[in-house]
Amino acid sequence: MNLEEALRQITPPDERAGQEAKARWDSIAKPLGSLGLLEEAVIRVAALTGSARVELDKRCATVFCADNGVVAEGVTQTGSEVTAVVAENFTRGDASVCAMARAARCDVIPVDIGVARDLSGEGLVVHKLGYGTGNIARGPAMTREQALDALSFGISLVGELKQKGYRIVATGEMGIGNTTTSSAVTAALLGLPAEEVTGRGAGLTSEGLAHKIKTVERALVVNHPDPNDGVDVLAKVGGFDLAGLAGVFLGGAVHRVPVLIDGFISAAAALAAARICPAVKKAMLASHLSDEPAAALALGALGLRPLITAGMCLGEGTGAVAALPLLDMALAVYREMSTFWEIEIDAYQPLS
Amino acid sequence: MNLEEALRQITPPDERAGQEAKARWDSIAKPLGSLGLLEEAVIRVAALTGSARVELDKRCATVFCADNGVVAEGVTQTGSEVTAVVAENFTRGDASVCAMARAARCDVIPVDIGVARDLSGEGLVVHKLGYGTGNIARGPAMTREQALDALSFGISLVGELKQKGYRIVATGEMGIGNTTTSSAVTAALLGLPAEEVTGRGAGLTSEGLAHKIKTVERALVVNHPDPNDGVDVLAKVGGFDLAGLAGVFLGGAVHRVPVLIDGFISAAAALAAARICPAVKKAMLASHLSDEPAAALALGALGLRPLITAGMCLGEGTGAVAALPLLDMALAVYREMSTFWEIEIDAYQPLS
Repeated sequence: MNLEEALRQITPPDERAGQEAKARWDSIAKPLGSLGLLEEAVIRVAALTGSARVELDKRCATVFCADNGVVAEGVTQTGSEVTAVVAENFTRGDASVCAMARAARCDVIPVDIGVARDLSGEGLVVHKLGYGTGNIARGPAMTREQALDALSFGISLVGELKQKGYRIVATGEMGIGNTTTSSAVTAALLGLPAEEVTGRGAGLTSEGLAHKIKTVERALVVNHPDPNDGVDVLAKVGGFDLAGLAGVFLGGAVHRVPVLIDGFISAAAALAAARICPAVKKAMLASHLSDEPAAALALGALGLRPLITAGMCLGEGTGAVAALPLLDMALAVYREMSTFWEIEIDAYQPLS
Repeated sequence: MNLEEALRQITPPDERAGQEAKARWDSIAKPLGSLGLLEEAVIRVAALTGSARVELDKRCATVFCADNGVVAEGVTQTGSEVTAVVAENFTRGDASVCAMARAARCDVIPVDIGVARDLSGEGLVVHKLGYGTGNIARGPAMTREQALDALSFGISLVGELKQKGYRIVATGEMGIGNTTTSSAVTAALLGLPAEEVTGRGAGLTSEGLAHKIKTVERALVVNHPDPNDGVDVLAKVGGFDLAGLAGVFLGGAVHRVPVLIDGFISAAAALAAARICPAVKKAMLASHLSDEPAAALALGALGLRPLITAGMCLGEGTGAVAALPLLDMALAVYREMSTFWEIEIDAYQPLS
């Protein structure tokens, strides 16, 4: 199925199911709307899936791993070889996101979409589009065909996960250099200067940051990505991980599976997905506000507010996975609580 | 044990244990500090308890229930009778905080410290200081002796909970009218005008809010609480729930048990506790940022940053309980993750 065919399958949110979920919240014996964004998240999932019977019990984090040619510019503290090491750790359950996912009853599915060397390990999904991308400071990251391949792959991956019973997908990534590509993508899509969307990544010095900003500026000048064409932006200044994750967001809307945005990199991919097809926003849930400065800009442009603001910036999907127990607790209230009628007290009144 | 004797037992945080916890975080294979406030919370608990071996497995939420005479002023949408109904629901496990606590493996301990009628139910702790407080718009909420009794009770409750094996205590409350008393306490302690610290509570109209602000102003004029004397502020414009919760925070520092602040009411109690004895701040952990406008002011004055900003304002301890799974996930990484040395890659370097 090509991209256009897939996107044609996206339907508007089911307002009736959303309203039914809201009515359930409003009937529960507590002040109206007092679980805030947690109520909103459940209502969004109801509208997306077409059912007020919201279940998120089986869940996974898809962690897209890829290398980035721009690392040759010296924009990172560590070398590309770290991508492969950490990606293989995912297959052994030995990474921060794996430890958190175990605590949150979430499966971790590592995806090699373009790591610079061949990987092995249990449960690894391989859809390798290359051994790292081109250096965006010198030319495009990939061809348009590769970007479309990554998007289609992301879409069908969500379809397969839904077939396997997964009810929600958390996004994550590992790829040395991918805050640089995410800054370039965000700058291109939002029309912002590089310095506003570029941060310290995994821990650059002030000098390193200045060099990274120059590199993002150069990537935009060299490649001239078309801000109205999300595919063009991903292909020219993105990465295999970003393109694949954008496909996962598209896939969430196509297959009606909610997808949790993680931090900045994941939000940049979500932004590209929404530029390709604005209707896909209905499948997105924000999780946390990354400490990377552009994360707030990307979420704001998507009209989403994060649940968690713990100053996290680890990547791997850790923020998205961290949101799962919050949704579990919201659903516990949503499902188990008495209504006003049942406990015989008057309901709170909505504000006039 | 009287209050002064108890407070004399508070020791400074154990910096060595805190540094050991920080060293463990820094050795884990991930960017330095990238779990943000979650790392900080674990370090704080280590320094409080004197051990880098942090365990929070057994936990409870103490939910202080009491009525407030100020309800006679018409500052609330519902009547005082609701306090007792919801308090008894806690004993049956049928309240929002109970549903969330089950999902978070947390026990709920309802405390009747001054509900307007006698309550019954399993697991209810009764330390009744009265059948509701005096109306703060006309005179003091309680006597200084009652406030001291509430504080001592809170302190010894934490001691008993520690004896029973609880490693962390979440705070919560139920008491119609207690956002009004919390606003009065916060205004008095921070020297702020009533309008800056007064919100809509469980859902007042704009007219209702204006009346509530006037009532808080009147409470301050009528009672003249001494801002340098936290006990005086609690006695004159607080409530039994606030005074008891302030005791829990003091007890956390005395018995070296971390105590999670919930929303605005709990934060006002924490502020009073810190005014009584600034050293107790070491036992406090912020959980979420309530939608009540003064919550941010109270947390800011305590120098604490919340983990969750989901726009919650339900009370009952729901925000504090919601933070527990985040701490669990942090501890999963802290305990289970490989160090850089183990996976044979170079450590990230601190910023110079």
